[in-house]
Amino acid sequence: MSKSTSAIIWIAIAGALTLAAMASLTRPAAVGAARTVEQNASSSPAPYTLTYSKDGDLIPPLQYREWIYLTTGLDMSYTAKPSDMSMFDNVFVNPEAYRSFLATGTWPDKTVMVLETRGASSKSSINKAGHFQSGGVMGLELHVKDESRFPGKWAFFDVASETKATLIPQKASCYTCHMDHAAVDTTFVQFYPTLLPIAKQKGTFGSSYLKEAAAEPAK
Amino acid sequence: MSKSTSAIIWIAIAGALTLAAMASLTRPAAVGAARTVEQNASSSPAPYTLTYSKDGDLIPPLQYREWIYLTTGLDMSYTAKPSDMSMFDNVFVNPEAYRSFLATGTWPDKTVMVLETRGASSKSSINKAGHFQSGGVMGLELHVKDESRFPGKWAFFDVASETKATLIPQKASCYTCHMDHAAVDTTFVQFYPTLLPIAKQKGTFGSSYLKEAAAEPAK
Repeated sequence: MSKSTSAIIWIAIAGALTLAAMASLTRPAAVGAARTVEQNASSSPAPYTLTYSKDGDLIPPLQYREWIYLTTGLDMSYTAKPSDMSMFDNVFVNPEAYRSFLATGTWPDKTVMVLETRGASSKSSINKAGHFQSGGVMGLELHVKDESRFPGKWAFFDVASETKATLIPQKASCYTCHMDHAAVDTTFVQFYPTLLPIAKQKGTFGSSYLKEAAAEPAK
Repeated sequence: MSKSTSAIIWIAIAGALTLAAMASLTRPAAVGAARTVEQNASSSPAPYTLTYSKDGDLIPPLQYREWIYLTTGLDMSYTAKPSDMSMFDNVFVNPEAYRSFLATGTWPDKTVMVLETRGASSKSSINKAGHFQSGGVMGLELHVKDESRFPGKWAFFDVASETKATLIPQKASCYTCHMDHAAVDTTFVQFYPTLLPIAKQKGTFGSSYLKEAAAEPAK
């Protein structure tokens, strides 16, 4: 598990994933979505149900690109050291959890967040400056709330294939980092611009985040 | 209409928008979405219908953050000159058009694409390097396909308020730029990583894009 990038939202990049495996991961979602066109052009993506193997692995949500988008970062890191490779990270959440957050300012049981990493390119086609996303998925992680299953209610998973997301052990540093620094219920709502005002209005910030934010120099 | 940023996907930033107007724009969408929770937690966003005023303005889709996310760029520009302010741009499309694209590799009539611009921040909370999105919406533009209404089938709109998106005249440079450089049907699919392989597979690239891509140096 690499700590060098994407540290802000969820720490690790799914280091074990090969590019080939990840590129293939998006294909069934597109195929499945295309199939729904014939059924009903305005239908929602199929609901996702948490399904675990006997080893505790999870079947990943291949339809996550049809879920609710939360934010994107570029080369975010919790160390000042620049990353070796320039990457965007996109965050999605299942629609049911998003709607619940809008109403309550926090996450319901069975929330599934997805962190997708893609390469950042520049100077191609008519783009002469700045960065755009290109190529296949380079990493995919899940942050899952399943209150009765996990000690801290949440767990992280590395997506290894179309059918397998591997549980990241609870002793990994991502758990303590999210616990100590994330704004709402171990999630980095401080980096989700549409959700931050809702959490503020509903008063759902965690105490450690409030303490940290109070100590930040004013801008 | 500024040409300095966001040039790649849609040229202009809605220069006439004030930050205050844009910040207020997102509020009704959130309120509306929260209201649907009580009705049906897994429901889709309300379908959007193109509604024009007698002056040709359009009522903007306030629910666009619940539409399908396509991509994000940072400080993209079609000149080498760096922009004065660091900004992310996020692109969304209505779900019906997205599903049609997955099946056909191009856009159906009544496609609505949304370009949202947000500030890029750094060094806050535990983020020590890289960039994340923060604050309210800084600009919002629409790219609308309405075949029987517009000379080139498509038109651009600047979102000026919650109820008004102003038509950008057909002589504006964004129209010719999209016509000359965009990969599929005047849209910059070359920067939408999940749609590019579908357009390639379906053979829907425009001839000017194919010529331009063939002339690019290999990487």
